[in-house]
Amino acid sequence: MEPRELTIHEANEHLAGGRLSATELVSSVLDQIGRLNQHINAYITVRPHSELLDEARRSDQRRRRGESRGPMEGIPIALKDNFETAGLRTTVGSKILMDWVPNRDATVVNKLRRAGAIIVGKLNMHEFADGPTNDNPHFGRTLNPWAPSRTPGGSSGGSAAALAAHMCLGATGTDTGGSIRTPAAFCAVVGLKPTYGLVSRVGVFPFSWSLDHAGPMARTTRDVSMLLAAMAGYDPEDPVSVSGPPIAPPPDDADIGGVVIGIEKSYLTALMEDGVRRNFDRAVSRLAELGARIEEVRMPRLEVSLPAEVAILFPEAASVHRSFLDERPMDYGEDVRRSLLSGRLYRADDYVEAQRVRSVLRRDLTATFERVDVLATPTVSIEPPEWGQDTFIVQGRRLDLLNAFIRCTAPFNLTGHPALSVPCGLTGNGLPVGIQLVGPPFSEAKLLRLGYAFEVARGPFARPPGIASTSRADGSGSC
Amino acid sequence: MEPRELTIHEANEHLAGGRLSATELVSSVLDQIGRLNQHINAYITVRPHSELLDEARRSDQRRRRGESRGPMEGIPIALKDNFETAGLRTTVGSKILMDWVPNRDATVVNKLRRAGAIIVGKLNMHEFADGPTNDNPHFGRTLNPWAPSRTPGGSSGGSAAALAAHMCLGATGTDTGGSIRTPAAFCAVVGLKPTYGLVSRVGVFPFSWSLDHAGPMARTTRDVSMLLAAMAGYDPEDPVSVSGPPIAPPPDDADIGGVVIGIEKSYLTALMEDGVRRNFDRAVSRLAELGARIEEVRMPRLEVSLPAEVAILFPEAASVHRSFLDERPMDYGEDVRRSLLSGRLYRADDYVEAQRVRSVLRRDLTATFERVDVLATPTVSIEPPEWGQDTFIVQGRRLDLLNAFIRCTAPFNLTGHPALSVPCGLTGNGLPVGIQLVGPPFSEAKLLRLGYAFEVARGPFARPPGIASTSRADGSGSC
Repeated sequence: MEPRELTIHEANEHLAGGRLSATELVSSVLDQIGRLNQHINAYITVRPHSELLDEARRSDQRRRRGESRGPMEGIPIALKDNFETAGLRTTVGSKILMDWVPNRDATVVNKLRRAGAIIVGKLNMHEFADGPTNDNPHFGRTLNPWAPSRTPGGSSGGSAAALAAHMCLGATGTDTGGSIRTPAAFCAVVGLKPTYGLVSRVGVFPFSWSLDHAGPMARTTRDVSMLLAAMAGYDPEDPVSVSGPPIAPPPDDADIGGVVIGIEKSYLTALMEDGVRRNFDRAVSRLAELGARIEEVRMPRLEVSLPAEVAILFPEAASVHRSFLDERPMDYGEDVRRSLLSGRLYRADDYVEAQRVRSVLRRDLTATFERVDVLATPTVSIEPPEWGQDTFIVQGRRLDLLNAFIRCTAPFNLTGHPALSVPCGLTGNGLPVGIQLVGPPFSEAKLLRLGYAFEVARGPFARPPGIASTSRADGSGSC
Repeated sequence: MEPRELTIHEANEHLAGGRLSATELVSSVLDQIGRLNQHINAYITVRPHSELLDEARRSDQRRRRGESRGPMEGIPIALKDNFETAGLRTTVGSKILMDWVPNRDATVVNKLRRAGAIIVGKLNMHEFADGPTNDNPHFGRTLNPWAPSRTPGGSSGGSAAALAAHMCLGATGTDTGGSIRTPAAFCAVVGLKPTYGLVSRVGVFPFSWSLDHAGPMARTTRDVSMLLAAMAGYDPEDPVSVSGPPIAPPPDDADIGGVVIGIEKSYLTALMEDGVRRNFDRAVSRLAELGARIEEVRMPRLEVSLPAEVAILFPEAASVHRSFLDERPMDYGEDVRRSLLSGRLYRADDYVEAQRVRSVLRRDLTATFERVDVLATPTVSIEPPEWGQDTFIVQGRRLDLLNAFIRCTAPFNLTGHPALSVPCGLTGNGLPVGIQLVGPPFSEAKLLRLGYAFEVARGPFARPPGIASTSRADGSGSC
């Protein structure tokens, strides 16, 4: 097994035990990038190898001297290209900012560096985070490591693909309607959209200020919890920043006996492709076998969450992009230009109505979380589709692109509740399916414990065909 | 002196000492209403005298039995007619809701009743709180007790006029751009717009959900603090409700030595009519004599606060009024119909820009309150104008109605900071002028202490001509 295939948790143990050096780990990651990035196109920018190896050597020195900065010391992490990096270009996946070199690190980047992480480079994304497919006209598509003819999901598609293809051990993402969770589900990695405000957005290029969340992505829930611990924290520069409870990785013996899991029947689990439903149902059964109690709940008003999402998202995005839209409209890709311009078609009182819907949904969820501890939903209703497909028939209903991709994730951008996607199986086409776990504000630790218990019961997940250096006997992973 | 001329604080002491009964106090107030309301038109609805006198008798019994509910026991309080009262019509100053009889009390009304207050009736207001003059086409103008040819200010004009004319001892108001503070200044009473969220808005008919504040009005700062203590408190039904620190009346020996008072030169004190400026400057000098340190500050971006206020207020109001505007447009007064319909002309991305301006202003104020303890401004830049006047020349600049009335008050609806208006003198025309004190979130106690020290130094304020039963030697009140 190559060092790059280790989880963050494993790599840290090997590094701490002197059985692995950061230099070896970074080299192994760079080898893989050299081999695969030309095909998968997950990275827009990789930092110079010499710089990275120098950093790795300094990290190894710190470890040897007993000056480790903590569990992220020497771990190769990659950043979605909407996180500002001082002196390193930050394109936000766009032509407009193709040559932008920020003079500061985003708060989260600064925190990761101070925690010892090695920032490998910047990851491809849907242009300006405005879309769920990662079909980027300026930097090219990021391919799904599981099936190159299919989208990896977006807008954090580069992050998910890089993780699935072992081109980094952890990554950052952003999520405005599902942009962390959708690609996590489509590429079989773990993604967390934290509670609104828990992770600073200072230095993260905005898409929609009231819906944007930054968060961690990795290959296991434990790794996500380690990344979250490094990324979270109150930031006085972010007006919506809040202090959450301390974050600790799930314990080895995580027990979920007695946890009450709600299954929302009227909207969140009402529409799924067969292959998704089979895996979702099996995952819920597995959670029940682990001791969780399953309860049906109904929140019929979730039906209006997607109209509310777009009536808030696009006007806010149009405001962010006001001067670019006026001055350089033709420098956007066609889909992004059209969707940003649509933000100018909403009336202010419609936006206000959408904000009211939002507070109604928040109240519905608050009431639901008095009855159940968490909700379980499919992360996405469909399996990763072929490039270019933009309408979908699910259980006889025609869904447009956004509805098919983010109907189960976007409600929690509106309400700000934390939501975790964990791989739960493969469809008949061999494509990944994710289960989404949602909890009350600041319940990240509970979600991660539940996700961890599920992972342990599920066993190691399959690797994308042709990615792993060695095959494993237990590698089927389908649950 | 008639009992109705007492402050709440004095009345409570007399009631507690057995020198006055609630029955006498309520009768005295009802006498005045019978005498003056036909002229001043402060009340839309007065509760039946028999009911009120029964309540007063029960209050007297509680006092006698040692079962007093606290300092508001037996105190006659009146409510702006946008506070819901169970079984008592609540018109919101409109034709549309002229016959509305709610089936619940607003949270604040419930709190006041449980604190022993006697709710005398419902006060006139600008229709749907949408305007600063109280020129109500359905219930008639409320006249300014100081000069019937002039507006009492609005939209809580009935509250201010009833207090000034001794038709109640305390009142509630609401403030979306200055609707408590403007009439308080114009009628020479004290009005407080508390920190956003400190006083529940449940059961208060909304005007603009993100700008609306409910608050107390009375004849002295001490009375306002007593009312605030009864009205404030976390309300789980109000999504923006917050818990503040406990509220205690200012101590007799309130000392303001060392308090740093900021005077904002670029906007808040830049435009004033001569008569307003003379009184404002004198009030600031008096505060300096009391030991406060005066500091100049500048927040030039306040210039955009009024455009931001209207771009948020009117779309939110149009959303509240959506179905009435569609179904009964001609049942609004012309000015209110026009202003509510204007809320449909804003684009959602303009609304979003205005919300950004708002957070910039909030940050400017946060920075300012690191340098100074409070800001002092005129409450209104002009003296109460004649009915119908809608443009104003101040220092050579032409101001429209909103700019003239709420330019100094509206910024703090945007930012949510607490702001207190205290009478500080009379213009050459014998018309009241108010000074506004603004502090950081939850600094109500500090503002009230400062206001109280100012009142003590200022001495008892003049009464409106012809209102008081007896004249006082010290009644000139001009400072």
